[in-house]
Amino acid sequence: MTAVDPTPPIRRGRGRPGHDQAAVLRAAIDLWNRKGYDATSIGDLARELGVTKPAIYHHVSSKEDLLRLALDDALDELTTVVREASDRPTTDTAYERLRVVVHRSVEVLVAHQPSVTLLLRVRGNTPVELDALRRRRWLDDRLAALVQGAVAEGALRDDVPPDLVSRLLFGMVNSLVEWYRPDGSYDASTVADSLAAIAFDGLTRHDA
Amino acid sequence: MTAVDPTPPIRRGRGRPGHDQAAVLRAAIDLWNRKGYDATSIGDLARELGVTKPAIYHHVSSKEDLLRLALDDALDELTTVVREASDRPTTDTAYERLRVVVHRSVEVLVAHQPSVTLLLRVRGNTPVELDALRRRRWLDDRLAALVQGAVAEGALRDDVPPDLVSRLLFGMVNSLVEWYRPDGSYDASTVADSLAAIAFDGLTRHDA
Repeated sequence: MTAVDPTPPIRRGRGRPGHDQAAVLRAAIDLWNRKGYDATSIGDLARELGVTKPAIYHHVSSKEDLLRLALDDALDELTTVVREASDRPTTDTAYERLRVVVHRSVEVLVAHQPSVTLLLRVRGNTPVELDALRRRRWLDDRLAALVQGAVAEGALRDDVPPDLVSRLLFGMVNSLVEWYRPDGSYDASTVADSLAAIAFDGLTRHDA
Repeated sequence: MTAVDPTPPIRRGRGRPGHDQAAVLRAAIDLWNRKGYDATSIGDLARELGVTKPAIYHHVSSKEDLLRLALDDALDELTTVVREASDRPTTDTAYERLRVVVHRSVEVLVAHQPSVTLLLRVRGNTPVELDALRRRRWLDDRLAALVQGAVAEGALRDDVPPDLVSRLLFGMVNSLVEWYRPDGSYDASTVADSLAAIAFDGLTRHDA
């Protein structure tokens, strides 16, 4: 159960009726994804929720504090996926671990779409955003190392520069946040299977 | 030569010294990509350029007018690519036309990266943005039709839903705007070749 789960139980924060921190966070992420972080204030968020500004400050100390919670929601999950793939016993090849990390990244993106959308739009205008960009770079570096490992094993083609492979592969994964609709035709597992099929085996029918 | 070309010749607009419309447009796109369209005013743009607001209004009638010019810079090029691929003589297969459109889309994204970045972040808060979203949907529909044509020919795998193919393929193309650097290691043609190789033939080495 996470802060951006679509239907979390409403927990009343510290005895105060109305919105709890998770609900404030969901509304903030939704507002920022629609209007932009820089363009919206805590006052705008309070209006959106139909509460007073002090009611918001009951749950978070500042707009930046709320942004950090939102970005951590995405970053913590993605970090777990990448760390587990990087730390797996060496009985798994880098190629196998790369396929697992692609699959699991799609699942995280689908389950945490609002906060990942926000994360991918971070521009680095504030210390919290710079910190998030630093954590994203760590993820990118570990993913690039996994791709290089799979090339070194001879499992991945070596006629495309490994850093371009990594950029394009996770570019395709990240693009999900722009169009995936949870109420649409495809569940997370269909999307993950389709994406892995295209990325690893290609679109062209070789038996044709 | 387009409005967002990195080094256009400076044409003095209607005899007034200083910035011409192309330079104002470039500065606006850059500012919006850094700070967000909603968060920035014509006054902010004037400060950025070190000119007065009337100097800006000498070139454009409104902030929305400027946004339309910026989005058209990306949309006109992408529309040409997609229309030419859709209208080609039937001697070319849909598969061949799809490969061409992928290649040429990468070239447009690289040559018009700032305006395409802006286009991909449009949220639909204003009539100009809604119009741009309508034009993007037209592009998406034509691309999806091309993918379906290639599947119907038997050239593309049919175990992945064609609309997912289209989303993921052009998701990978669009992701370029997030990381491609014109002063980096790879030129447009290397990126286009790499992307097409991965998308059509896959990452896995089948001869291994």
